Amino acid sequence: MKLARFGSEDAPGLGLVEDDRIADLTAGGLSLSTMRDIIAAGPEGLEEIRAVARLAPRLALDEIKLLAPIERPGKYLAIGMNYAKHLEEADRLGVARAQHQTWFNKQTSCVTGPYDDIDPGVTEKLDYEVELAAVIGHPAKRVSREEAPKHVFGFLVANDVSARDWQFHTPTFTMGKSFDTHGPIGPWLVTAGEISNPHDLRLRSWVNGELRQDNRTSAMIHNLWEQIAYLSTAFTLETGDLIATGTPEGVGVGMEPPIFLQPGDVVRCEIEQIGAIENRVVHPSD
Amino acid sequence: MKLARFGSEDAPGLGLVEDDRIADLTAGGLSLSTMRDIIAAGPEGLEEIRAVARLAPRLALDEIKLLAPIERPGKYLAIGMNYAKHLEEADRLGVARAQHQTWFNKQTSCVTGPYDDIDPGVTEKLDYEVELAAVIGHPAKRVSREEAPKHVFGFLVANDVSARDWQFHTPTFTMGKSFDTHGPIGPWLVTAGEISNPHDLRLRSWVNGELRQDNRTSAMIHNLWEQIAYLSTAFTLETGDLIATGTPEGVGVGMEPPIFLQPGDVVRCEIEQIGAIENRVVHPSD
Repeated sequence: MKLARFGSEDAPGLGLVEDDRIADLTAGGLSLSTMRDIIAAGPEGLEEIRAVARLAPRLALDEIKLLAPIERPGKYLAIGMNYAKHLEEADRLGVARAQHQTWFNKQTSCVTGPYDDIDPGVTEKLDYEVELAAVIGHPAKRVSREEAPKHVFGFLVANDVSARDWQFHTPTFTMGKSFDTHGPIGPWLVTAGEISNPHDLRLRSWVNGELRQDNRTSAMIHNLWEQIAYLSTAFTLETGDLIATGTPEGVGVGMEPPIFLQPGDVVRCEIEQIGAIENRVVHPSD
Repeated sequence: MKLARFGSEDAPGLGLVEDDRIADLTAGGLSLSTMRDIIAAGPEGLEEIRAVARLAPRLALDEIKLLAPIERPGKYLAIGMNYAKHLEEADRLGVARAQHQTWFNKQTSCVTGPYDDIDPGVTEKLDYEVELAAVIGHPAKRVSREEAPKHVFGFLVANDVSARDWQFHTPTFTMGKSFDTHGPIGPWLVTAGEISNPHDLRLRSWVNGELRQDNRTSAMIHNLWEQIAYLSTAFTLETGDLIATGTPEGVGVGMEPPIFLQPGDVVRCEIEQIGAIENRVVHPSD
């Protein structure tokens, strides 16, 4: 099931994507009014969606604006250096190797839609990172790797847009991962049951049609179940929280010499069985 | 004005604290239903509060339960190593000195009330940090130090409870700053106009009545206005966001040898002109 938010953030609609059309669940009378409500409702929510979708009006996908599939998540956590060859890129930049999974936050205020513009802001080193992101369903606290899959509601594509100059102001990464508009996600939320194996998906990114990243999620160092087990040992992962599982090699800062994104560039991030998001870099707003 | 949330998280009330009593604004018919609504309403909201408070029923402060004064903030940002002598403590622990302000996130899921219990969880190195925290009013994007004060709605006391073992898993600090219950704040939100000078407040912490931290906010390396200017250069600080401004020397991990919090310990954090929060460490849950 591909669940989407569409229209405007002032009055978003919820929809079920079917090929090139979308069933307007909101117009169809769905009792759930936010994506978080849908996630929290679990299997009963999906049941209601199936029923409502049968009679809901259809809209052409290319005539609507897709929004970020989930409203502001409570947490947006992302793991760094989680693909071997990207780790080598980080080594060359002098990032210290950690014995543990390296987690940082993207501020939830950076989240934007799948085709929204990227504003460079004050960075001069704008970069992309395609990542598989998981959306938490049932809250997870101290769950084992074996139990972890039960806590994932679904998946989406994330571009972990990064301001490399500001990222390395401090070893915490906090400042350079969360510029406004630097968190495009989408294009929809694919429920977990639709993904045969989240650790066997091809993920790719392109800049202006040129392939930059091309790997498979099987190359993760710490897989998603290990990530959920580790995070949830410390704190509760809550319904709607977003977990970005890392990016493979091929980012701009890792090239020799580095190549950063410029106004006018278009970045496409695609993951097998999910879809693609595409974002244009604009001139910095003042 | 001292604004509080009280009762239960299922049906919280909003109140105005007057010495040892609280005016129940919710029972008095306040049109605003959350603290975030109050903050967003600005001066008109405070006007309505004054009017409603005149006729609102009074409750004894010691007969109600105070909650975290702000519901889950959108962001909870905290600065590290922002008092000179605490920076020396961090140096001894091998934390790299940064040229820039060092920011990290506390996950918003760790926020708890001013007198709630602290659950150590899996840490064996539980520690406290008294901090002055600011609550953002009008959203701040690229504001100067001079303009920064206009964006602060008010202040509260925060205990940046830290799991030192997990904090140093990686240089990002992410894992050890956000265990569930490790974000007590309160006891209320004091509006900015009540604080003569946020950079001239005595802040102290005690463990079981023994004074551990005792300094003044004038000793900050980067003051709050510089913090807001720096953060807002990168991203928008939004209404209700929480900014913890750093802790002075005297934390447990900085002692020789280190002394960590144990079940049964009571930590009190107090800031002049605001008030005090007090939290008991309990035995780890399951």
